[in-house]
Amino acid sequence: MGAYMALRGAQVNLYDKFESAVESIKERGGIDLKGISLEGYAKFEVVSTSIGEVIKDCSLIMVVTPAFAHLSLAKECAEFIEDGQVIVLHPGRTGGALEFYNAVKQINPEVNFVIAEAQTLIYACRRTGPTEARIMGIKNKVSVAAIPGKDTEKAVKYLNEYYPQFVPAKSIIETSLMNIGAIFHPLPTLLNIARIEASEDFEYYHEGISKSVSMIMTEMDKERQLVAKAFGVETVSAVEWMKMVYDTDCENLYDCIQANKAYTGISAPKSADTRYLSEDVPMSLTPISELGRLSGVSTPYIDMVIEMVSIIHKIDYRKNGRTLERLGIEGLTPAEVIAFVDHP
Amino acid sequence: MGAYMALRGAQVNLYDKFESAVESIKERGGIDLKGISLEGYAKFEVVSTSIGEVIKDCSLIMVVTPAFAHLSLAKECAEFIEDGQVIVLHPGRTGGALEFYNAVKQINPEVNFVIAEAQTLIYACRRTGPTEARIMGIKNKVSVAAIPGKDTEKAVKYLNEYYPQFVPAKSIIETSLMNIGAIFHPLPTLLNIARIEASEDFEYYHEGISKSVSMIMTEMDKERQLVAKAFGVETVSAVEWMKMVYDTDCENLYDCIQANKAYTGISAPKSADTRYLSEDVPMSLTPISELGRLSGVSTPYIDMVIEMVSIIHKIDYRKNGRTLERLGIEGLTPAEVIAFVDHP
Repeated sequence: MGAYMALRGAQVNLYDKFESAVESIKERGGIDLKGISLEGYAKFEVVSTSIGEVIKDCSLIMVVTPAFAHLSLAKECAEFIEDGQVIVLHPGRTGGALEFYNAVKQINPEVNFVIAEAQTLIYACRRTGPTEARIMGIKNKVSVAAIPGKDTEKAVKYLNEYYPQFVPAKSIIETSLMNIGAIFHPLPTLLNIARIEASEDFEYYHEGISKSVSMIMTEMDKERQLVAKAFGVETVSAVEWMKMVYDTDCENLYDCIQANKAYTGISAPKSADTRYLSEDVPMSLTPISELGRLSGVSTPYIDMVIEMVSIIHKIDYRKNGRTLERLGIEGLTPAEVIAFVDHP
Repeated sequence: MGAYMALRGAQVNLYDKFESAVESIKERGGIDLKGISLEGYAKFEVVSTSIGEVIKDCSLIMVVTPAFAHLSLAKECAEFIEDGQVIVLHPGRTGGALEFYNAVKQINPEVNFVIAEAQTLIYACRRTGPTEARIMGIKNKVSVAAIPGKDTEKAVKYLNEYYPQFVPAKSIIETSLMNIGAIFHPLPTLLNIARIEASEDFEYYHEGISKSVSMIMTEMDKERQLVAKAFGVETVSAVEWMKMVYDTDCENLYDCIQANKAYTGISAPKSADTRYLSEDVPMSLTPISELGRLSGVSTPYIDMVIEMVSIIHKIDYRKNGRTLERLGIEGLTPAEVIAFVDHP
């Protein structure tokens, strides 16, 4: 993302927590971008493991990490954030912006910044060498929302300078509850866990999501939609989402997934220690369940997946995930939450 | 079982619901028994699809069917049962004797009979031809309990004439809650459902029960034990059961199952339409959950498996299984249930 923006003329600084990740880039001064987007050598201004140095004077800060890194990143950068800076999580999963906002404000209550979250990562991409990255796919449309809600417009404007694909969502509750990975990752992983632990080679979507798996996913997806409804935010079913995003002609989740050629060749994880569980349970299912609790919607399927994965990983993801407390909205009503994210 | 008893000198009648099942046997007058037990031609007295004709004047009636047939069988034979007859379910799964008792009494309230249930089927056996059966394994010890409780002794005495392996359990609540198939069948089937639906060939126990699967089974097994405790009946954990029955030297469920050579070669089901779900959910998990409900013990894992399988099979196994109402014990306390099965 940084390389693309640099090639589009932006001044880009690069941060990573680990020296090993930035060592070669620092030495070379930039990276090569390959793939279906722009190609070329992208130069970075500052490359560092010191977050204060990297975000200094930046108007737009892009956070592209697994969601379980958001909290520590927020704490780490809190004291360096400057008034008016716009931070965007790519993506926020569920409650990413709220968690980030709450963590920063606890450390630096005076700062006036904008924290936005994208509904999904705009790219299919990967790092292909120490100083090389490749973009394989770009989504047509990605919604974004911010805290405070009035600044969603500002965030989208900043993003649109480089990416016309970003469009405003009504609220971060909408982007949070449209998190379809919450439905597509943990449950099918759980219902294939024995073969995953045996490192069996199978296609995650086309083979892992059998008719029975899709039927249970559909029930779980209804819980997500009910929570969204309780907050009065717009959402669509996983089937509608599949039709929209992939233009598939299908009526049920099983047919949609089988018909989607973009899923061909996507392998299943090779161990129970996969981000499909370690990221999507605490950062997606836990906050959806918690938002359900806040709004009086029960989420038994989601809760059971959290329970089972907690047992497998020996981590209590109910407590170690994005709880209402961690999101800073415990004790509020749904209307108060909506009001809070609009005008915190 | 009938052939073995005939070869041991009993007068045996044979019943099956389906004419096709008994046609050849009726013609030939008996079957050949093969395997590790007695071998030889076993002659039957009466072979019929008319249950009244078959059970007439019998002192001991052995029921060897999937548990989902118990209810209709009870209704079918209710009016023909004679005072003093002993009926034994091989096995009862959970609540088999109670369900049978309740169904018979509703149709024929005056009859004084004994309905017993074995904790498991004594044999590993199968039908190997139209008039041939083979016994591959015999368990060393199988517990049995009856309604009324005082007649457990009578049932065991009848059984011991042919099988020294049967020993008395304290109550049918004990045999019902020691149903280990409830733990070993539905959950691992569910956690392997995608490969089962793809008819993948894998070993049910050794490959299907991975470390993660065994960890969740262990939690589910705790629920079964807690329900037993609430009724004050003796039970052991699945691990203790494995050590006892298979003499395995192991500390956790995963190691026990991997170490058990008797499981080698047992294939997984080849479709979601398997008795591991269609029998073990409504006839094992539903009544354990219901006994939990009656005794104030919550069983979230068991309940979720019932829910998920209900979705897959499009059958509400919570209602279509062995409910408290169907067992005739709704509204009782645990102590009243124990008293009822002792002196109904």
